Amino acid sequence: MKIYDISLTISKDLPVWQGDERISLERVKKIEEGANSNVSVLKCGVHVGTHVDAPVHFVPGEKGIEHLSLEVLIGPARVVQLPETCDLITAEVLEPLGVPLPERVLLKTRNSEFWRKGLTEFQPDYVGISPDGAQYLVDKGVRLVGVDYLSVAPFKKTRPTHEIFLKAGVILLEGANLCEVVPGDYQLICLPIKLGGSDGAPARAVLISE
Amino acid sequence: MKIYDISLTISKDLPVWQGDERISLERVKKIEEGANSNVSVLKCGVHVGTHVDAPVHFVPGEKGIEHLSLEVLIGPARVVQLPETCDLITAEVLEPLGVPLPERVLLKTRNSEFWRKGLTEFQPDYVGISPDGAQYLVDKGVRLVGVDYLSVAPFKKTRPTHEIFLKAGVILLEGANLCEVVPGDYQLICLPIKLGGSDGAPARAVLISE
Repeated sequence: MKIYDISLTISKDLPVWQGDERISLERVKKIEEGANSNVSVLKCGVHVGTHVDAPVHFVPGEKGIEHLSLEVLIGPARVVQLPETCDLITAEVLEPLGVPLPERVLLKTRNSEFWRKGLTEFQPDYVGISPDGAQYLVDKGVRLVGVDYLSVAPFKKTRPTHEIFLKAGVILLEGANLCEVVPGDYQLICLPIKLGGSDGAPARAVLISE
Repeated sequence: MKIYDISLTISKDLPVWQGDERISLERVKKIEEGANSNVSVLKCGVHVGTHVDAPVHFVPGEKGIEHLSLEVLIGPARVVQLPETCDLITAEVLEPLGVPLPERVLLKTRNSEFWRKGLTEFQPDYVGISPDGAQYLVDKGVRLVGVDYLSVAPFKKTRPTHEIFLKAGVILLEGANLCEVVPGDYQLICLPIKLGGSDGAPARAVLISE
């Protein structure tokens, strides 16, 4: 059994969504200054780093992150490599992947190189999924979609893609760092922290190969 | 396969360590106010709710949460019920559990009733592990210890117990909500978010039975 950590390290250097406040992780009690223990405080948006979206992120009144199904967040998943030249994940791009698709699909794109390079600023030219690409995955019965940048949707066009997925109850894993992962079949464990009523939550996500 | 979520829901109502700031989880962008999506910001200590301690919490210069072994955080675990009358988990209390112990042990005490009751204030009379209890578990080869309140150590005596565990490389899962879990053997998945260099991190933790 080999475990691949596909989670980004959360720190002040991690890029956040354009216009959002950067992540703050500060040690507020320090042994070296006489405290009993070292203790840190975190302040960040709930959509930083490797994270999961809840339906209420785009659909008012819908459920929060704590209600997402653990049975969907844990289970067999396929990592699919998309061509380096792919700038938008459309139905046409997805069709050659073949069917049936497993219930959990992680799309590896040129975005993963952003993480490999350790870029600290937001990259608006990331690869996202078009509305017809989202509808294709919903129609194929996919229940969890993972992407390797901070949104499943293209920049400045976030609503339609999110709405299609979230209204269909698809769980969205965003900011997965797939740069070290070889395409293929794995067991996914994707666990967002249990933030009550939240529109999203940072998650630790791993892939396990037998 | 059945999945038991042993994670506390993180919200402003969750008790935090005495003297610490309460958890803040605030929706800063709202669709109903014209925003494109609902977006929340979290501010909390890294030792809130169900969480994992890193060695640097009590041992200056030691490693942060992102370096803990996923091979230890995931694997077979035993949930052990301790008597309702137990106020301190000593070596004497632990000896009747028998050996060999599995590498991961979760200790269910009367603390779990605090979570069942939904108490919102810190309970200083929680059950913790004495230094000789910690040494007993280290000597038996336990590599992950879970407890059902916010610290492995008794209140006001936190340093010795933590030091014994953390210097021995034992991973500490604190704030596990075991009130619905029947003692026995499970697969544990305990995933703290990957906070760079942090002394601790909120975690999502589940137990899986076949």
